[in-house]
Amino acid sequence: MAEPEKLTIVMFSGDMDKALAGFILATTGASMGMDVTIFFTFWGLNIIKRNEGPIKSKGIIRKMFNIINRGGAKRLSLSKFNFLGLGPWMISKLMKETHTPTVDELIKMAQEMGVTLVPCSTSCGLLGVPEDAFRDGVMSLAGAAYFLNEARQSKVTLFI
Amino acid sequence: MAEPEKLTIVMFSGDMDKALAGFILATTGASMGMDVTIFFTFWGLNIIKRNEGPIKSKGIIRKMFNIINRGGAKRLSLSKFNFLGLGPWMISKLMKETHTPTVDELIKMAQEMGVTLVPCSTSCGLLGVPEDAFRDGVMSLAGAAYFLNEARQSKVTLFI
Amino acid sequence: MAEPEKLTIVMFSGDMDKALAGFILATTGASMGMDVTIFFTFWGLNIIKRNEGPIKSKGIIRKMFNIINRGGAKRLSLSKFNFLGLGPWMISKLMKETHTPTVDELIKMAQEMGVTLVPCSTSCGLLGVPEDAFRDGVMSLAGAAYFLNEARQSKVTLFI
Repeated sequence: MAEPEKLTIVMFSGDMDKALAGFILATTGASMGMDVTIFFTFWGLNIIKRNEGPIKSKGIIRKMFNIINRGGAKRLSLSKFNFLGLGPWMISKLMKETHTPTVDELIKMAQEMGVTLVPCSTSCGLLGVPEDAFRDGVMSLAGAAYFLNEARQSKVTLFI
Repeated sequence: MAEPEKLTIVMFSGDMDKALAGFILATTGASMGMDVTIFFTFWGLNIIKRNEGPIKSKGIIRKMFNIINRGGAKRLSLSKFNFLGLGPWMISKLMKETHTPTVDELIKMAQEMGVTLVPCSTSCGLLGVPEDAFRDGVMSLAGAAYFLNEARQSKVTLFI
Repeated sequence: MAEPEKLTIVMFSGDMDKALAGFILATTGASMGMDVTIFFTFWGLNIIKRNEGPIKSKGIIRKMFNIINRGGAKRLSLSKFNFLGLGPWMISKLMKETHTPTVDELIKMAQEMGVTLVPCSTSCGLLGVPEDAFRDGVMSLAGAAYFLNEARQSKVTLFI
């Protein structure tokens, strides 16, 4: 049997709209039999954080940063029309009305379909995100070399 | 004769500067003999909407959303320095001065060169954009599976 | 000996966080033996400008534009949480604390590792950036056809 084709996504953005796009592509790829990996870096790490309070950390800057950059799939903003939450609220209404799954639901679907979710080790180090801040089922941290090695074997690679 | 190489672009952003980049790459690819497809999703749908008034729709949220998210190639903002229209106005001046074609002109050029423009069906459903909101010559709606199938056959795939 | 595999990056964004991501990928690719090219376009041109005063230019719009769009690796903002400089300041603190190299240092490392840095000729024409605005070692200007020709030979192509 032929190896399944690979789809590799770098999820750099932590915006709700871009997360939607990334997970719709990932779950569609998986349903087409592709071997899908999403590599979460920088703001993208917020998408796969547990929906909990801000990470506890030492140092005033890290504390401040972890409050403004709290994360969790249920707490993402939009890349456009954010307007203090008005845009995300409108989009959520439209999603409910059209029965579009939420990012939180799409993550669960992706995990059930075998999509590999990998947090970037360099970003976690820089932003002070410990490994246990992530949802269950998320892989161990890996670096840029891991991503590039996946990408060079992939049919499709996207930076979102 | 060999099959032409494929270039596939996801146009997620609806910003004028990113639309410029996307269409300059698309028309350059077409002029090099590549088979080019642009798949418009989310805010990117605005780029290929007709330059007309907001879409008529039912429900107060959809109505509000279609007013703030009106679209049309002649009504795009910038990803940076938007400043209530000052940035786009400055860029337009610079474009005129350097004889850079506008996004509206680039779309026409791309269509004449055989670039395939496809709106994402899921985004259209979610945002309530009917098929007749798009410019003449735009293809029928298609989903993420259509895009991934194009992308896996492409030499170059970009997410913009 | 086999040809080295190519990694080609379009650096469209001029944000500090995206520049970090681009240069970490570029230097990692080079350390893995890949042949790496970064093609700088639009706001991305700011990353490889010399850390000097604004470009001198004629015409009031160009003058205004070159002041707000001054550039230089040491003067980049964040794609998120920019808050009049608070975000970049916090990130700089976190970078210092975790010994993460700055964008300025990463550019030097990339150049020492043989990463090719190419400014987009169309963007330079539009934005009025002369060739001598760029750091030493940056290649001559090249257009979209140059990029697409690199990309079609690449194992991995990313639009950042």
